[in-house]
Amino acid sequence: MTQLCIGVDIGGTNTVFAAIDKEGKVHAEGHIPTVGAETVEGYCDQLAEAIRELRYEIPGQPEILAVGIGAPNGNYYKGTVEFAPNLPWTQVLPLCDLMKERLSLPIHLTNDANAAAIGEGLFGAAKGLSDYIVVTLGTGLGSGIVVQGQVLYGSTGFGGELGHVIVEPGGRACGCGRKGCLERYASVTGLVHTLREKIEASDEPSGLRFVPAKELEGSAISDAAKAGDPFALASFEDLSATLGLALANAVAITSPEAIFLFGGLAKAGDLLLQPTRRHMEANLLDVFQGTVRLELSALLDANAGMLGAAALAWNEQAGSTAS
Amino acid sequence: MTQLCIGVDIGGTNTVFAAIDKEGKVHAEGHIPTVGAETVEGYCDQLAEAIRELRYEIPGQPEILAVGIGAPNGNYYKGTVEFAPNLPWTQVLPLCDLMKERLSLPIHLTNDANAAAIGEGLFGAAKGLSDYIVVTLGTGLGSGIVVQGQVLYGSTGFGGELGHVIVEPGGRACGCGRKGCLERYASVTGLVHTLREKIEASDEPSGLRFVPAKELEGSAISDAAKAGDPFALASFEDLSATLGLALANAVAITSPEAIFLFGGLAKAGDLLLQPTRRHMEANLLDVFQGTVRLELSALLDANAGMLGAAALAWNEQAGSTAS
Repeated sequence: MTQLCIGVDIGGTNTVFAAIDKEGKVHAEGHIPTVGAETVEGYCDQLAEAIRELRYEIPGQPEILAVGIGAPNGNYYKGTVEFAPNLPWTQVLPLCDLMKERLSLPIHLTNDANAAAIGEGLFGAAKGLSDYIVVTLGTGLGSGIVVQGQVLYGSTGFGGELGHVIVEPGGRACGCGRKGCLERYASVTGLVHTLREKIEASDEPSGLRFVPAKELEGSAISDAAKAGDPFALASFEDLSATLGLALANAVAITSPEAIFLFGGLAKAGDLLLQPTRRHMEANLLDVFQGTVRLELSALLDANAGMLGAAALAWNEQAGSTAS
Repeated sequence: MTQLCIGVDIGGTNTVFAAIDKEGKVHAEGHIPTVGAETVEGYCDQLAEAIRELRYEIPGQPEILAVGIGAPNGNYYKGTVEFAPNLPWTQVLPLCDLMKERLSLPIHLTNDANAAAIGEGLFGAAKGLSDYIVVTLGTGLGSGIVVQGQVLYGSTGFGGELGHVIVEPGGRACGCGRKGCLERYASVTGLVHTLREKIEASDEPSGLRFVPAKELEGSAISDAAKAGDPFALASFEDLSATLGLALANAVAITSPEAIFLFGGLAKAGDLLLQPTRRHMEANLLDVFQGTVRLELSALLDANAGMLGAAALAWNEQAGSTAS
């Protein structure tokens, strides 16, 4: 019988999920709105129902082994989502327990960036690596750090949080209430912020000057940079300098074999990769120079959120069989 | 028969070693000059001979199980000391192999700060903790980071190196060839540097103004701070601000239960601990606030270098028996 795990990726707007086999092949997928239910219990009712329906879509009555969930502010140890600013229910949500009641299956949960790291390890470019970092560059910056084959959760379950390393004391205000966090500089939000500052401080011509604020996104800036716009290029350079230094500092702590960039902004490719690599290498302590590959995720075009969540379920399944 | 491990602490001037039991009790100790031999082979001859002699000093012919070595720039994976700037032979020294040939015992090696962390875990304040950091504050800043009960070595064996996280891009020149490393601010050297800058930039009176440069050490500055000298107090405040922020950033990555301060400067006690705790807490992301104890090492007055090196040998011994 085909054995599958369900990977669930909870986003601020939509929740997407898929039944995925051990090789990372998606057998069926579905989605529900994250914001459709008034209570978290109602949301879990909808999600459980949709997962049950998904199973019937797959020929041959596959066996569903477990469910993995990736969610912002997800806590692996507690199976909870805690105070996620982008989710409609801002409290401590016991998602694992709520879903276990409804599906009678093993449910595992982690934050979305850790899920991406686990997915990269099982299905992507980090196969066979025991020490690596996945950095997701989107609206914010998330990261999953793997040390000796295990996700670095630390004592609280919230470890591996590079996005909230303070890189500029007293700098840009962050959603977390502090100032100068890495994600205010190295993310789409950070890139747009930097670009606006540069344009406002100059009279030089740039097509980007006339793009309405709402439409100024990462892809517009990468396109402009590829076409030679000096503001766009300088903004990527600034982002890369900040990111490269922060990665070099992270290397001094966890000494990974590779760092993979993931998320919407990673689609800028060499525009981001080459200068970040240069700045990282320039800031590495001698013993780390030349020891760390900086590459794009192999799952950039896939729904790595679902793949990562399913990979979590597969890994836990393997662990429980082994023990 | 009494079972003992030998802990060897290699410093720039002296090498000290002791035979230590599983409870951390020192049964005998000795020392040789680190700089006494012209070649590393000659040094190892002397060290092996001294360890053999040490055994005869202990009543009842104890069984020596293994030797642990803590050394600057020690690499646990390779058993080497690599390019240690303070050792007389600047190259890749295969100390484990050289000592194994001479003693026919299992030899284990790690860097001195990792040894301190292992010792804190087996014999000190970190007993029973699985996630903690030990920061040694001396001439430089070393650190050993423990994650899920294992020292964080990363892929190279050089992980856990907080002293060379860059906290001030373009800042003070560091011995590593880069600029702005944490250890140029948070160490005795950093404290003296800061104090001098403050005194030179001011006309205010201070007894420290007349202390000859050579005598301006950590203890002189702590004594002055305790007596109310404003320059000394401000220098401790600056050091604590830099260290507190760097520790908060490290917490975002490894989320430890506790951080222990160790080394000569840690003897300043509350003068260092209280402001560092305040700055760390103020810079912690909400999910980490109140989760991390910042305390002094329980091995401050002991020779923690030897204890840590012996703890490494004991841990490896336990591992080899278990497996």
